[in-house]
Amino acid sequence: MKRIKLIVAYDGTNYCGWQIQPNGVTIEEVLNKELTRLLKEDIKVIGASRTDSGVHSLGNVAVFDTDTKIPAEKIAYALNVSLPEDIVIQESCEVESNFHPRFTNSIKTYEYRILSCTFPKPESRFTTHFYYGHLDIEKMRAAGRYLVGKHNFKSFCSPKTEVLDTVREIYALEVKKEEDIIKIRVSGNGFLYNMVRIIAGTLLEVGMGKYPPEKIPDILKKENRSAAGPTAPAKGLTMIGIKYIDN
Amino acid sequence: MKRIKLIVAYDGTNYCGWQIQPNGVTIEEVLNKELTRLLKEDIKVIGASRTDSGVHSLGNVAVFDTDTKIPAEKIAYALNVSLPEDIVIQESCEVESNFHPRFTNSIKTYEYRILSCTFPKPESRFTTHFYYGHLDIEKMRAAGRYLVGKHNFKSFCSPKTEVLDTVREIYALEVKKEEDIIKIRVSGNGFLYNMVRIIAGTLLEVGMGKYPPEKIPDILKKENRSAAGPTAPAKGLTMIGIKYIDN
Repeated sequence: MKRIKLIVAYDGTNYCGWQIQPNGVTIEEVLNKELTRLLKEDIKVIGASRTDSGVHSLGNVAVFDTDTKIPAEKIAYALNVSLPEDIVIQESCEVESNFHPRFTNSIKTYEYRILSCTFPKPESRFTTHFYYGHLDIEKMRAAGRYLVGKHNFKSFCSPKTEVLDTVREIYALEVKKEEDIIKIRVSGNGFLYNMVRIIAGTLLEVGMGKYPPEKIPDILKKENRSAAGPTAPAKGLTMIGIKYIDN
Repeated sequence: MKRIKLIVAYDGTNYCGWQIQPNGVTIEEVLNKELTRLLKEDIKVIGASRTDSGVHSLGNVAVFDTDTKIPAEKIAYALNVSLPEDIVIQESCEVESNFHPRFTNSIKTYEYRILSCTFPKPESRFTTHFYYGHLDIEKMRAAGRYLVGKHNFKSFCSPKTEVLDTVREIYALEVKKEEDIIKIRVSGNGFLYNMVRIIAGTLLEVGMGKYPPEKIPDILKKENRSAAGPTAPAKGLTMIGIKYIDN
C-alpha cells in the first residue's frame, strides 16, 4: 500500500465545489470515480482545500492510498486521459504513508481577480469578478498590509464555519494590476471558510472609497462577520498552490 | 443618418467566426439581430477583421448606419444589456459617414497564445493552444525578426484566399513568456487569410527545433503555402485591436 499525492487544477465553473454533496457534481466525486475505474480499487481522495462552488484551482492537493503497480509519476498521465478537460492533474508522486494534505503545516496561496474596466471582457468572464467603478489600488494595498501577520480573523469568516479557533497567520498579501485585472494574492498558514473572498470584498470596499484602509484594525478587533465587507463572488477566486513545510 | 463605430470583444469559442454563413451562429449575425431589435431599423454591420471560427477578440471593429436618436456613446450600454455574455461592446462612437473599417489605413494587432507546460491548465483551455514539449523562445524570437518588414507573405496565406496582392507589412512581432504562456504579438497594416495562425505554427516548429530561424527568408522566398509550418489552432488567437491612421 502506498500513498499518492496529486496536484489538481480545475475550472470550477461547472462544479459544486470540491467536497462530495448530494446535489450536483463535485471535483472530489469525479476524482474518486475516475481513480476507482483506473486502478480497479475503491479509491477515496482526501483534499487539502475544500473549495466552494465556482472556485478554480491551479494547485490544489489530494492524496489517496493504493496497491497499484502503475508508477506514481505515471498516474497523472493515465488519469488525465479519462478526466473531463476542466480537471487536469498537474503532477502525481508518492508521499509518506502518514502525510495528510490538511493537517500538515503548509503555506497556502490564493489569488482573487477583479476585472476593473468600463465593460466586462468575455474571455475572462468565468475567472474574474467584474467591477466597473474606479478602484484605488494604493488604498487596497494599504488595507492589505493591516491583514498581514497573526490575527483573529473571525470578522473575515463565514458564520457557517464549524471551526472554533479563528486565529490564522497571513504571510503575504500583494495587490497588483496587470492590464485590466487587479490581482489580490494572499499566502498564509491556513484560511477560514470564505476568508479570502471576504478579504477581497473588504478590499473592494476600501478601493471604492467606502471607508479608509485604517479601518481594517477595527474590523479585525470587532471579531464579528458583519464588521467586514461582503463575500466577493466565487468565480474570481483561484487556489494557486500549497507548499508543505518539513517539520 | 449617422455612422456608428463599435469596438467588439468576444469569446469566439461558441461561434462560427465573424462572417454570416448558412450553418451556425456568427458574431456578425448576433450583432445585426440585436441592433435591429434595439434600434428598430434594419441594421447590417460591416466588420474590420472577419475572424475565423473559434478566434477571440478584445478589440474588433464594426460600423453601421442609423437614424436613431440614442446618443452614440450610449449604444454600447444599451446593446450590452441584450447581447449574450460572450459578446461585449467595449465602446460606441460616431465616425465620419465614409469611414470604412476594412478600407481605412490601420495598424492591426493580434496575439497568439501557446500554453507551454507539462499538462494543460483548465482555466485557459479555450484561449490558448497547449504544447507540452520544450520550446526555444530565443529561436522563436529570431525567426519572428525575419518576418518584420514588407514582404510577400504568400507562403503564410491559406490557398483558399481570394486576394491577389499578398504583400503586407509587419511593423512589430514580439515573443514573450508570462508564467506558462508564450505570447506572440504581431502588428501590421493587414493580414492575409490565416496569416497569424500560420506564423504561429511556423514559429512553433522553429521553437521545437525542426528547422533554424534562418530558414524563414527561404520560406518567404518560396511564395508557396507548403513551405511554411502548419496553421496553429484557432482558439489560441485573439484580435487585440485596430488603430486607424488619419490620412
